[in-house]
Amino acid sequence: MGWAVALHGGAGVPFSLPPEARQPREEALRHCLQIGVKALKSNMSPLDVVELVVRELENIPHFNAGRGSVPTNKGTVEMEASIMDGNTMKCGAVSGLSTVVNAISLARLVMDNTPHIYLAFDGAEDFARQQGVETVDTSHFITPENIERLNQAKEADRVQIDYTQPIQNDATKSETETPFANGDSQLGTVGCVAVDSNGNLASATSTGGLVNKMVGRIGDTPLIGAGTYANELCAVFATGIGEALIRGTVARDVAAMMEFKGLSLKEAADCVVHERIPKGTVGLVAVFAAGEVAMPYNTPGMFRACATEDGYFEVAIWSDAIIE
Amino acid sequence: MGWAVALHGGAGVPFSLPPEARQPREEALRHCLQIGVKALKSNMSPLDVVELVVRELENIPHFNAGRGSVPTNKGTVEMEASIMDGNTMKCGAVSGLSTVVNAISLARLVMDNTPHIYLAFDGAEDFARQQGVETVDTSHFITPENIERLNQAKEADRVQIDYTQPIQNDATKSETETPFANGDSQLGTVGCVAVDSNGNLASATSTGGLVNKMVGRIGDTPLIGAGTYANELCAVFATGIGEALIRGTVARDVAAMMEFKGLSLKEAADCVVHERIPKGTVGLVAVFAAGEVAMPYNTPGMFRACATEDGYFEVAIWSDAIIE
Repeated sequence: MGWAVALHGGAGVPFSLPPEARQPREEALRHCLQIGVKALKSNMSPLDVVELVVRELENIPHFNAGRGSVPTNKGTVEMEASIMDGNTMKCGAVSGLSTVVNAISLARLVMDNTPHIYLAFDGAEDFARQQGVETVDTSHFITPENIERLNQAKEADRVQIDYTQPIQNDATKSETETPFANGDSQLGTVGCVAVDSNGNLASATSTGGLVNKMVGRIGDTPLIGAGTYANELCAVFATGIGEALIRGTVARDVAAMMEFKGLSLKEAADCVVHERIPKGTVGLVAVFAAGEVAMPYNTPGMFRACATEDGYFEVAIWSDAIIE
Repeated sequence: MGWAVALHGGAGVPFSLPPEARQPREEALRHCLQIGVKALKSNMSPLDVVELVVRELENIPHFNAGRGSVPTNKGTVEMEASIMDGNTMKCGAVSGLSTVVNAISLARLVMDNTPHIYLAFDGAEDFARQQGVETVDTSHFITPENIERLNQAKEADRVQIDYTQPIQNDATKSETETPFANGDSQLGTVGCVAVDSNGNLASATSTGGLVNKMVGRIGDTPLIGAGTYANELCAVFATGIGEALIRGTVARDVAAMMEFKGLSLKEAADCVVHERIPKGTVGLVAVFAAGEVAMPYNTPGMFRACATEDGYFEVAIWSDAIIE
């Protein structure tokens, strides 16, 4: 047994990602990982740790959540998030937020202060005001980089892409190429899982969703069992094409394969990502009660970071981990 | 192999339910079951059958869905629904509808005509208008009976009850009695599962949610894996206290126990309802690809009905099935 914390800032990262796009994100992941490690070392509960780390990720405009949320087809922002505690299986979720600075903390308040699990759109915004959480004008979330992404997505009539690099004009690009073959997608969402040295687990995830998504679209992130899950065995969160993750009940399936089939965390996570979900659509981060971490993905890369009590520390995008 | 269709109109029905409340609901279930049987016999696809049957259930004001949807704490109606096809695992879901006559058909249109699975609130209402589905003034859904239920729930400061009989004033009632001990709850939602004689499966469910729920609250009904699930093995939908069903990923867990643990449909459904979910919170209806039906519940009763190709026909509320 030992503590562990793992996080990510989106799957789908192309090998062609330029250093100026890569470095600030790597630094941000390292920064957030250190916050998580420090919090676990100071005996903060895993539930508080995952909320803290995801708040930090939301505040960084380089990731598709909070400040860096990608826009809908109307140029608006609709953020969503969820959080789950493994011991109690209590959970909270929100969708359709347009003014709340930290969606993950509102999800936590839904869990703690209402008889419900999930509040969305106007009702969730009203609840945010009742609870006094920090809100800002919705323009705060709309970055010039993301407006450019939206315009490019609209031009290409593409919805099914997520947090992307602005696309370079490429006259050689075939009409039939999928967005995932173009090397221009970095699928969004951020999230964090943590376990303490007593085996208490928690998971949290947050996103702006898909570039050019329809107004009102809900993805996997706020859905317990799809984008987020935690019980006494493991904590999981997923990122990628939300629709594939919803059909695949991805986060629950990792736990269910451990529980019902006796697989190890790594076996279960690998099976879900490599055998059950379409290639190019998913990355997930999972942690076992005994401190083991698994971070498989079937996209070109995934912004990920993890640390464990035995001194392992990793920040990586592709298969070549940067271990410090 | 043989076709089968099963439906319900809510779990939690108290033994004290008077005949004048029971009879019209039994008749409605029988009527809807016959519609499903006729459709399957005429080789309609299970996906079309479940949509057809749930539309009919939505149109009957005796059930908590569509016309009979219970109100939020602001006296408004926010309906939700989902539908899933077992073969393709395609699915559609909607939440927060206030003017759409048949939420289930809008869920089907999200599945068929958008790149997404799930649309909610204003975006879902806009989509309804784009698609030209039937909409009405929201007052259509607000029945005097449900306003009375809301007033009683507000008076008792209760949220966690669902489609209830108007409560009789009862001076002897203890303060500490739970809503489920009062004999006054009939937990809502309607739904239908069907399988054809080739083993094609589908599931659909629709609800008004909880009486006195917070505006913006999303329950289990639209959540794939919680209230609804279908794959090549089975089709499942659940009803009850949505929050318990979300935590329990109830519909997916029935399928996952069959898939990962090798349980039969009945074993898996019984295990989920009787061993994994708190007593008094859930009823579910499940059908196996080979035509077997399971309808366990851990509430006092459940409005349910099923028919199979071999001539079995059942309409029942409590454990004494009425077999015709």
